[in-house]
Amino acid sequence: MEQQNMEKYAQLVLQKGVNIQKNQPLVINAPIEGAYFVREMAKQAYALGAKEVHVNWADDTLTYLTYKHANEEVFQTYPKWKVMLQESYAEQGAAFVSIHATDPDLLQDVDPTRIAEANKSAGIALKTYREYIMNDKVCWTVISIPTTGWAKKVFPDVSEEEAIEKLWHEIMKMVRVDKEDPIAAWDAHNDLLKKANDYLNEKQYEKLVLKAEGTNLEVGLPKDHIWAGGVAISEDGTVFNPNMPTEEVFTAPHKYNVNGVVSSTKPLNYGGNVIDDFQLTFKDGMVVDYQAKQGEEVLKHLLESDDGAKRLGELALVPHESPISQSGLIFYNTLFDENASCHIALGKAYPTNVARGPEMDEAALDKNGINDSMVHVDFMIGSAEMNIDGVTADGKVEPIFKDGTWAVTFK
Amino acid sequence: MEQQNMEKYAQLVLQKGVNIQKNQPLVINAPIEGAYFVREMAKQAYALGAKEVHVNWADDTLTYLTYKHANEEVFQTYPKWKVMLQESYAEQGAAFVSIHATDPDLLQDVDPTRIAEANKSAGIALKTYREYIMNDKVCWTVISIPTTGWAKKVFPDVSEEEAIEKLWHEIMKMVRVDKEDPIAAWDAHNDLLKKANDYLNEKQYEKLVLKAEGTNLEVGLPKDHIWAGGVAISEDGTVFNPNMPTEEVFTAPHKYNVNGVVSSTKPLNYGGNVIDDFQLTFKDGMVVDYQAKQGEEVLKHLLESDDGAKRLGELALVPHESPISQSGLIFYNTLFDENASCHIALGKAYPTNVARGPEMDEAALDKNGINDSMVHVDFMIGSAEMNIDGVTADGKVEPIFKDGTWAVTFK
Repeated sequence: MEQQNMEKYAQLVLQKGVNIQKNQPLVINAPIEGAYFVREMAKQAYALGAKEVHVNWADDTLTYLTYKHANEEVFQTYPKWKVMLQESYAEQGAAFVSIHATDPDLLQDVDPTRIAEANKSAGIALKTYREYIMNDKVCWTVISIPTTGWAKKVFPDVSEEEAIEKLWHEIMKMVRVDKEDPIAAWDAHNDLLKKANDYLNEKQYEKLVLKAEGTNLEVGLPKDHIWAGGVAISEDGTVFNPNMPTEEVFTAPHKYNVNGVVSSTKPLNYGGNVIDDFQLTFKDGMVVDYQAKQGEEVLKHLLESDDGAKRLGELALVPHESPISQSGLIFYNTLFDENASCHIALGKAYPTNVARGPEMDEAALDKNGINDSMVHVDFMIGSAEMNIDGVTADGKVEPIFKDGTWAVTFK
Repeated sequence: MEQQNMEKYAQLVLQKGVNIQKNQPLVINAPIEGAYFVREMAKQAYALGAKEVHVNWADDTLTYLTYKHANEEVFQTYPKWKVMLQESYAEQGAAFVSIHATDPDLLQDVDPTRIAEANKSAGIALKTYREYIMNDKVCWTVISIPTTGWAKKVFPDVSEEEAIEKLWHEIMKMVRVDKEDPIAAWDAHNDLLKKANDYLNEKQYEKLVLKAEGTNLEVGLPKDHIWAGGVAISEDGTVFNPNMPTEEVFTAPHKYNVNGVVSSTKPLNYGGNVIDDFQLTFKDGMVVDYQAKQGEEVLKHLLESDDGAKRLGELALVPHESPISQSGLIFYNTLFDENASCHIALGKAYPTNVARGPEMDEAALDKNGINDSMVHVDFMIGSAEMNIDGVTADGKVEPIFKDGTWAVTFK
């Protein structure tokens, strides 16, 4: 990783990712292995006038040791100070950068009950903080940098050093840091995604029908649903990019109106465990049957996190010829894999995906078909064979995706 | 650093340092550069039955950037979540391992007002937590491992890699990990320190008179003062070693009864700044005059932290032929330098240094001459020329130290 590219990437994350403002605190969630990049971000953030840079460090090895050996009580309660930490920065209007770079196989020999309990405790404790993020009350972005465990999973046949170098190379391409002016490249890309959103928002399809091998799913959409993707706008009007890379446009499925069968097309790395080759059957919005060739026990725990975990919180369209898809790699990291493929998410929907959603209370969101849960887990269902039709209020059927990509041309 | 020595060191810290118990939480304050050693400690702590291992990570570069560039407000308030973090682990009876390994020159170009403000905010906010530590309500230990910045300060003429290797080698010697059975070696060492404590405790000197070049200081001692050193015993009766290495026996000076002049004999690394070649004049326990050839401004801020910062909180005796002193190195790290030399500390005294101290309230401690402050900063005054006499209640003068070492033989 050249110093120059690292500087460009840090700048991109700060300016386009969270759009850091003068005197704003910045919170970075980062693996200690990535300290060299975090230091570069901190340096630039202060140069841009950040009030303070706080880093929540994590370490795969310690995470593993804790899941493996700590007393069970540790997973049943979530520390109050951690809640206070996140909420106090959110209250101050901090920007949040999360670096996702966990070894996909990290927790594979850990008892899934412990993971489920930890996720549940965190989910309940972080409700308020999650609302800051999912309602875009603050600016936030999810990015990645290579770590040894993850890089070796993507490139198992080369040395650790080479794997990290290769993964940096891929990431730099996908976040357009290989372009001379990455910020201009992101502006152009955000414009394209906006055109797709505008088209679908005007159409206001009543439902979408997704068909591919192993998939035949009708996804109802809420009244006044909103397609989003690319940039988001925070409560105070700051434009930011919640994911880097991002190739998707997405909306909220109607929580009570999803029917049929859907099959995964890529492995899902869920909190340090891989779930692969799985199939879900929906009735009236709820998962009524499921199986997985790998990680079925983990999938079971995920679905049983709470009532909302069995319903959908996102439907995202990604053309199969996206740059990430074209790399031909499996990243075992949702941030990348979700942007290589159409996907849906189990769990909480973004209230921003329906008109006036951020102002609605829980009852109003439910009435409008917007799902709530403590989890939000994307998984990939797209392929080169995926066809998607939109069905309008008056029953007209219009192709949206044909053979894995847009069947419409945007102006 | 050989894997085998690292394992022995981690074991020593856990068993002799904090004496970790089954189902006890362990908190480690550590630089991210030392992750490899922290992981080893965590692995062993879990093997010994620890309930949970929590790490508070720090990074010199980020600390520097924050002091240099963050908004001033950041130093004027100490985050509530950080207080809650430390107090909640202390309430649970956690063991605390702190790894001191800051680059001594880290903050040398930072405005000392910012450092003083940060220390003051932390000092006020962490009052309750500090009482847990200074009254031995919990088991705690301070240790070191090499970091690049620090190692290069001690060994400026070799490569970073070699400096770290050399510093590891010195640390291993000083903490007796080079012995075949370090734990047995510590037991023997603790016994020796106990003999010195027993001798001085029986004597109950009214005051000590310290004389060397630039030093002529009378240090009154409180009634029923207690000399300690080597092991400490926590509230629940667990025997632990608060410092590794440790070569000192120490007690509390009487806060209102210190008179004369004292000169430093080694540089003091105070929170990322070096204070060197300094002299303090005391009258009735209080510093009434001071000068420093280096870092006088930092010394000024230290003395002005609060009322108690101008009075003494510790007097420690260390023979000049201690293994640390014999290394001939200056470590710019109090944990080592204080164990190479007789020293005194400005600021809070340990209530454990007077009979029934831990049960006394603030007024009672004051009445007994036990100083209170938010700071506790050791600095070195010992040398091969240091002579110390004890003066008994009936005016008898007895030599304690002659030419920098014990003038008495213990049985």
